[in-house]
Amino acid sequence: MSEIEAFVGELRRFVAERDWAQFHDPKNLAMLLASEAGELLAEYRWVPGAEADARSREPAPRVRIADEIGDVGIALLLLCDRTGIDLLQAMSDKLAKNRARYPVEAARGKAERPDG
Amino acid sequence: MSEIEAFVGELRRFVAERDWAQFHDPKNLAMLLASEAGELLAEYRWVPGAEADARSREPAPRVRIADEIGDVGIALLLLCDRTGIDLLQAMSDKLAKNRARYPVEAARGKAERPDG
Amino acid sequence: MSEIEAFVGELRRFVAERDWAQFHDPKNLAMLLASEAGELLAEYRWVPGAEADARSREPAPRVRIADEIGDVGIALLLLCDRTGIDLLQAMSDKLAKNRARYPVEAARGKAERPDG
Amino acid sequence: MSEIEAFVGELRRFVAERDWAQFHDPKNLAMLLASEAGELLAEYRWVPGAEADARSREPAPRVRIADEIGDVGIALLLLCDRTGIDLLQAMSDKLAKNRARYPVEAARGKAERPDG
Repeated sequence: MSEIEAFVGELRRFVAERDWAQFHDPKNLAMLLASEAGELLAEYRWVPGAEADARSREPAPRVRIADEIGDVGIALLLLCDRTGIDLLQAMSDKLAKNRARYPVEAARGKAERPDG
Repeated sequence: MSEIEAFVGELRRFVAERDWAQFHDPKNLAMLLASEAGELLAEYRWVPGAEADARSREPAPRVRIADEIGDVGIALLLLCDRTGIDLLQAMSDKLAKNRARYPVEAARGKAERPDG
Repeated sequence: MSEIEAFVGELRRFVAERDWAQFHDPKNLAMLLASEAGELLAEYRWVPGAEADARSREPAPRVRIADEIGDVGIALLLLCDRTGIDLLQAMSDKLAKNRARYPVEAARGKAERPDG
Repeated sequence: MSEIEAFVGELRRFVAERDWAQFHDPKNLAMLLASEAGELLAEYRWVPGAEADARSREPAPRVRIADEIGDVGIALLLLCDRTGIDLLQAMSDKLAKNRARYPVEAARGKAERPDG
């Protein structure tokens, strides 16, 4: 059993002990994920891009950032577990699509475009 | 090496081949994560909560949902890799905090509160 | 001068007195807007859709919801003011596009589709 | 009648003609707002902060940004109309709170803090 699978087991126990599965339909979990992503975003909103790496290493912000990353990761795993979507498979499939969508020669040094 | 670590290695190659690390400061990656979470949200916005599980099993939506989950997972791993924050550790730490914040007896059957 | 224009004048004074325009480039304001939208989302994430109207009328949640709506509206007006995009014009243009995209007969009673 | 009130009247007609009020409970509208804010965010995610003003003036991005601002504004007005929350009042109330929270002398030249 992988480390992620073991952690998902812990999440299931946490949810079951609190009888929270009733709140965890995929719609609500997608909302949880997006609101946690918004809190993570808030950590960087006034930080210049060029200072964002350094900010991520300062002790107090780092604790908060790790905390929000933990929230986002938990929400994502809860959603994967509820829907039966395998996270690693979904990421691998998407990376394969991105390789095809952004060929190395054409994409080198160019930011992805929202209208790409 | 865990499966996640192996996948992060693939992500690094994907980014390096395209010379995209220059765009991947933590601020931009937090924005990527939040915008991908927004796309996932869009999959459920008109779906009643009681139908969200069934919707997640229909073939066409399922492909799109898995695709967005892949995007969110990739953004999250890119951010963890860039900041050196260990995702599994961050999730475990957060779960420990949530266990303390929501004791079983007090939390059973009650949705978390945004003002909690 | 419209009420909105008068309020934007107040916002400008608030920002100028604090010398905050330096933080308010459009990228940062888009992040502010999305993180505030995430907080608003959090108010509804465990509320069943069928109870969301009633929840919005309960005194304590209503105060928080109005508070988050205020934050989102302020972020949106700051972004419009910074970019010189006229909010009412942008909304009118979009409504015209939506009228064309969702003709009455075809769209009646059907939720918009993310793949529409 | 203010320009905003007149526009809300147009929105109501648009929604009524398509029989879409059934989908527009406040939870779904908060999701719509957050997903549209995510699309706006995507316009700036690879743009350096120092170039975000210039980017907002380039013709093609400007059209897309105005389009997303229109979407966010429409979602916000739909939510206000559904909940009976007055947008201008909510923004004025929040600005008053922000004036108290960030006194001019203490806040001058300092970015707001997520832990503020």
